[in-house]
Amino acid sequence: FLVQEFSRFHKEITPMFDGLNNNRVHWKELADIYQAKVDAIENERKRLEEEQAKKGMLDPINPRFSDFVDKQTGYTTKNILAAPLMNGKDPLGVVMAINKVGGNEFSKADEDLFTKYITFATVIALQHYTSYMYNVESRRSQVLQWTASKVFEELTDIERQFHKALYTVRTYLLCERYSVGLLDMTKEKEFYDEWPVKLGDVEPYKGPKTPDGREINFYKIIDYLLESKEEIKVIPTPPVDHWALVSGLPTYVAENGFICNMMNVAADDYFTFQKEAVDESGFVIKNVLSLPIVNKKEEIVGVATFFNRKDGKPFDEQDEQITEALTQFLGWSVLNCDTYDKLNRTEWRREIAAEMVIYQTKATPAEVQQILNTKEKFDMNPEDCDQREMYKLLRANIPEAKDVDLLLFSFSDLPVSELDLIKCGIRCFFELGVVEKFKVPAEVLTKWMYTVRKGYRDITYHNWRHGFNVGQTMFCLLQTGRLRKYYSDLDAFAMVAAAFCHDIDHRGTNNLYQTKSTSPLAKLHGSSILERHHLDYSKTLMAEESVNIFQSLQKRQFETVQHLHDVCIIATDLALYFKKRTMFQKIVDATEPMADEKEAIAYVSNNPIRKEIIMAMMMTGCDLSAITKPWEVQSKVALMVAAEFWEQGDLERTVLDQQPIPMMDRNKSDELPKMQCGFIDFVCSFVYKEFSRFHKEITPMFDGLNNNRVHWKELADIYQAKVDAIENERKRLEEEQAKKATGEDGGEGGKSKTCTIF
Amino acid sequence: FLVQEFSRFHKEITPMFDGLNNNRVHWKELADIYQAKVDAIENERKRLEEEQAKKGMLDPINPRFSDFVDKQTGYTTKNILAAPLMNGKDPLGVVMAINKVGGNEFSKADEDLFTKYITFATVIALQHYTSYMYNVESRRSQVLQWTASKVFEELTDIERQFHKALYTVRTYLLCERYSVGLLDMTKEKEFYDEWPVKLGDVEPYKGPKTPDGREINFYKIIDYLLESKEEIKVIPTPPVDHWALVSGLPTYVAENGFICNMMNVAADDYFTFQKEAVDESGFVIKNVLSLPIVNKKEEIVGVATFFNRKDGKPFDEQDEQITEALTQFLGWSVLNCDTYDKLNRTEWRREIAAEMVIYQTKATPAEVQQILNTKEKFDMNPEDCDQREMYKLLRANIPEAKDVDLLLFSFSDLPVSELDLIKCGIRCFFELGVVEKFKVPAEVLTKWMYTVRKGYRDITYHNWRHGFNVGQTMFCLLQTGRLRKYYSDLDAFAMVAAAFCHDIDHRGTNNLYQTKSTSPLAKLHGSSILERHHLDYSKTLMAEESVNIFQSLQKRQFETVQHLHDVCIIATDLALYFKKRTMFQKIVDATEPMADEKEAIAYVSNNPIRKEIIMAMMMTGCDLSAITKPWEVQSKVALMVAAEFWEQGDLERTVLDQQPIPMMDRNKSDELPKMQCGFIDFVCSFVYKEFSRFHKEITPMFDGLNNNRVHWKELADIYQAKVDAIENERKRLEEEQAKKATGEDGGEGGKSKTCTIF
Repeated sequence: FLVQEFSRFHKEITPMFDGLNNNRVHWKELADIYQAKVDAIENERKRLEEEQAKKGMLDPINPRFSDFVDKQTGYTTKNILAAPLMNGKDPLGVVMAINKVGGNEFSKADEDLFTKYITFATVIALQHYTSYMYNVESRRSQVLQWTASKVFEELTDIERQFHKALYTVRTYLLCERYSVGLLDMTKEKEFYDEWPVKLGDVEPYKGPKTPDGREINFYKIIDYLLESKEEIKVIPTPPVDHWALVSGLPTYVAENGFICNMMNVAADDYFTFQKEAVDESGFVIKNVLSLPIVNKKEEIVGVATFFNRKDGKPFDEQDEQITEALTQFLGWSVLNCDTYDKLNRTEWRREIAAEMVIYQTKATPAEVQQILNTKEKFDMNPEDCDQREMYKLLRANIPEAKDVDLLLFSFSDLPVSELDLIKCGIRCFFELGVVEKFKVPAEVLTKWMYTVRKGYRDITYHNWRHGFNVGQTMFCLLQTGRLRKYYSDLDAFAMVAAAFCHDIDHRGTNNLYQTKSTSPLAKLHGSSILERHHLDYSKTLMAEESVNIFQSLQKRQFETVQHLHDVCIIATDLALYFKKRTMFQKIVDATEPMADEKEAIAYVSNNPIRKEIIMAMMMTGCDLSAITKPWEVQSKVALMVAAEFWEQGDLERTVLDQQPIPMMDRNKSDELPKMQCGFIDFVCSFVYKEFSRFHKEITPMFDGLNNNRVHWKELADIYQAKVDAIENERKRLEEEQAKKATGEDGGEGGKSKTCTIF
Repeated sequence: FLVQEFSRFHKEITPMFDGLNNNRVHWKELADIYQAKVDAIENERKRLEEEQAKKGMLDPINPRFSDFVDKQTGYTTKNILAAPLMNGKDPLGVVMAINKVGGNEFSKADEDLFTKYITFATVIALQHYTSYMYNVESRRSQVLQWTASKVFEELTDIERQFHKALYTVRTYLLCERYSVGLLDMTKEKEFYDEWPVKLGDVEPYKGPKTPDGREINFYKIIDYLLESKEEIKVIPTPPVDHWALVSGLPTYVAENGFICNMMNVAADDYFTFQKEAVDESGFVIKNVLSLPIVNKKEEIVGVATFFNRKDGKPFDEQDEQITEALTQFLGWSVLNCDTYDKLNRTEWRREIAAEMVIYQTKATPAEVQQILNTKEKFDMNPEDCDQREMYKLLRANIPEAKDVDLLLFSFSDLPVSELDLIKCGIRCFFELGVVEKFKVPAEVLTKWMYTVRKGYRDITYHNWRHGFNVGQTMFCLLQTGRLRKYYSDLDAFAMVAAAFCHDIDHRGTNNLYQTKSTSPLAKLHGSSILERHHLDYSKTLMAEESVNIFQSLQKRQFETVQHLHDVCIIATDLALYFKKRTMFQKIVDATEPMADEKEAIAYVSNNPIRKEIIMAMMMTGCDLSAITKPWEVQSKVALMVAAEFWEQGDLERTVLDQQPIPMMDRNKSDELPKMQCGFIDFVCSFVYKEFSRFHKEITPMFDGLNNNRVHWKELADIYQAKVDAIENERKRLEEEQAKKATGEDGGEGGKSKTCTIF
């Protein structure tokens, strides 16, 4: 056992010296002293060996002594003085003295001397050991930090990620070459490729497989040749006789997931490494360390193989530790590559779906033709045809002002067909004078308007009719309400367009319902959920050239239009209404006393924020405008609004298993008039009152509102009267009952007395 | 300068001893010896100091000597013997002896003794230093490995990821508490929140900002209280007087991005730390190390603050290194949290778009009504109504067999309206007998068929008419062609349904065009690009309950249907046609000599692979069936196919800037008949010949094909004759020209001679 210990000691000590790369030269002196002693022992051993050879062998007596080495060497061990070099509880090595010279055994004095020497030797050994281990840990930290630095630089595919990391850490790995093989991750074959196998026409695969059942196929190899001048080789679909693969070791590692450390490649029986140079560089494989790269799902994604430690020694436990830390980290980091793949695939699926939405909602040529009604001219190249001719043609196909007066606040969509409303929408832009000014091609305008219509769902209230009404009211506020004086033509263009789009693709349920049902819309948008969706939709249309009415604008103008869409469409979230109330009122207060119109125009136009606040309040005024319409319109529309609310209430009950609020509870439909009064008083009244104060031209809206207030109040009162009557009847019956009971009981309560008096 | 060196020595040495946590107890002995010497020097220094105090001060002579300490302490330094403790080129410390006792200066002997002592002291100091550094590096490795292990476990949000990592490494950080504050990453405010500021109604934010301009707002704090029993506290929107924030240090770090090491909190003037206990636990802050957590975009995402090193000492450079490695890694790993967020948002956007596609393509109640034509019954709850009544009603609305015979291979869709084709599609399922058997509700069947129709785009060839024809031919092959005997009713149901869906949402361009134009479809699908998309679409319809004709099936049956859709729809990729040719031929060869029909049925039905191969070839037979139709149909359809190819050719020229292949080049449209002959000979002929051999009932298709072959050949010959005539004319003119030239030149060439003879 001593021989084993001694050989182990040597093995352990050697790398300690080798590891010392940080030229602590003053240790050399101490090492030399130590080496001198080792040499002295060795010389003495040799001398005794020779002596023994002359004398012949002597049998050992102590049963713990193994004569294995003596038999091998012909030396006779007579006595031994040995002590371990300890690092706490861990032995670092053993020092021993063999065969006392000039005596039959080691004396007490020898032991004392030996002990003193051991103390000294321990200091040296420990310092070397600690220093080596420090170097190992330091390299491991560096390898991890550099790998992390590369992995987190960006999301990328596995090849690029591995290469970036492996290239960066090359100086810490202290080996002549390394090679990384990436494994095919395909688990299942296409059904048609399985047919020949299942029919028995083709032999099933019998080759090596990964533990999770994949056929082992290195689809790519990256070789890092560092032994002379650096060279990196990327080999897609490497041949089976590639120098790094041909021994079969990487395949074995991929098959079993073991870390394999081949200390002496030449002596290995299991794997046949090339005995001669692997390539023209003359590189010969001496020792190999091969590790699987395993992801967090425990799948082997690749194999990293390290060749020839730089100092020519075999790879040791510490090399295994460093490379294992590296390969483990790389394996884990495959999460990022998988995510990269997943993100790309999700994005492509989104793009595919988005294109399908556009295709399915974009007005078809036939639909555009339905409005443009110009068979011959339509097929012409828009570049070629005279847009003024087209405009004339388009206007000729639009309902006349005598049929529908879009300039009236009291306009009602109810008698107009949905198709005619599309035409009316187009007319608004002509009336604004923006079609010619901003060079909107007639087909594009038609297609856009029709596409907007198709974007609205056929739901109870928030359908195309509502979308149209908001656009028309915006048009009215600008023109009839004379608010246009504060805005540029581009502003007006954007505001009316945004108003038409403001509820596009509404689903008939409100923001709170999106949140409660955790719809994807709610997950995507933190606030103003539906409004942000309508905004996204309107911007999608701007991104689609064939329906982009803003296509002729300059970049800056286009950005303005986009911003105004943000302001206008987000403003329709009633939750934000209270934020802007006071700011709007201040503007009205400020302009009211201004005698000169120009002063007011300057006050607003010169301040983009005031323009935005008024614009935002205009959107609210448009969105709620149904409440200002003539009673015969309002009474019908209010029911549609209510019906949609009740449908949501039904969904809340059935889908969410929740009790809806009274407004959405169809069992409380009788309370609609009362709720309308409340809504008028707490929300609408302010808007139209302030707008009437701001511009007297808008007074018709406020009048309409007040008129409807009277009607709703009347209905509410009738209902309340009924409720009261029932309540009174109930009370009467109760009292009667009480009276009877009193009578029966012969009671003498004050109440019954009062009744008698009454 | 000596005083400075000495104080530095002490500072450096202290952590060395403190760092020794790996009970190497036998070093204690050596340390004690060293300490005894240090104490002796200290005592001597004190003694001399006292002596000096009595004597009065003495001015130093050497100009390199600083009397700073002497002045402070009143001690008189007369002479110094000093030497550094070196670690290679780095000084670890300085040992010095002051004021020789019993002499005026240190002697040569003193120097020698001192040098010996220094050698020894260096060994000790270096071992402690290395050992401490090993411990530091080891902890750093561990911190990095554990952090990586957690970060790569799964993609998650920043809070969860940081917490998982910070919790896992707590034992390596050796401090009593730490606290991590997460910063709000919002860069821009909503435009409406900026209004009050821009109007001057609200003061602009004047508080601290991050270097990239964000307002500093710790929206969440996670406290790790480790000093007694472990406690983790998560504080959303922490108050400003939270114990970890109140000093202002984390805000300062977030503002400047500095690493701040407060060695002695009590003495700090800049930050006011709480002097008393921060909470009821009695914890008092002694020293603090605070680091920014910075992502790869150089934005500060949070601040990590460490309180009270476990041994009571201040945090040193090595603590900074470990915590910096940790916070750096955490900061980098924010890439994963950002990706998680991005992935989620992309997925939500995809879901929103997918729902919009379904909404926009799903048959509306009005459209279903158009076919079911049962106003009263339609609005009934499907659960309530008698499906047999509904079936009767539906069948009554479907074109009669006398008008259109769906059982004929020669059926032509051309005289039938697209709406009627929807009805014909529905009839196929009734004829198969699968509607009743698999309990397909009449409205669902109608809605599905209509939705499939709407899924087809209105393009030149691969439109709903083509989709219908393939479904009808599949129906014919099963019924008229008697192939049904190999298949179950469920198989037949799935096969016809798949056939109707097989080209849904085709874009009029082929797979190669998808690849060349790098469309999202091509990025998503590596092969059979469009076919996989048609398949996805057909499965989307199965996932939508209101149009899922397979809704009454059991799970296993449903899985069969899905698999058959895979087989049938992918099989329409002509690129896979050659893979299955031989396998199909083998089946035909095997069944041909079988006298008993039952034998053939068993041969096919009992082997699912043979069933699939025939099924796949049936799909090809259906997809190409236009080529077997009566000439008046084929001649028209072939032109539509060609027209779509030419459109793609145009796109290749304009969009991809490439020359299309002859088949897609409209300038080579004259060669259509020749190309049709080639297509028949090299692709189609095999299919219909083998099917006719397999089942004689299918011979009409092969006959139709051969008939069309004759027609195309005729046209090809006519064209060829024209080409030849032109060519001959060209040659003739050439020769004439040559003759003339010869004549003019007066040449005597052999040719002109022959001409003369001729």
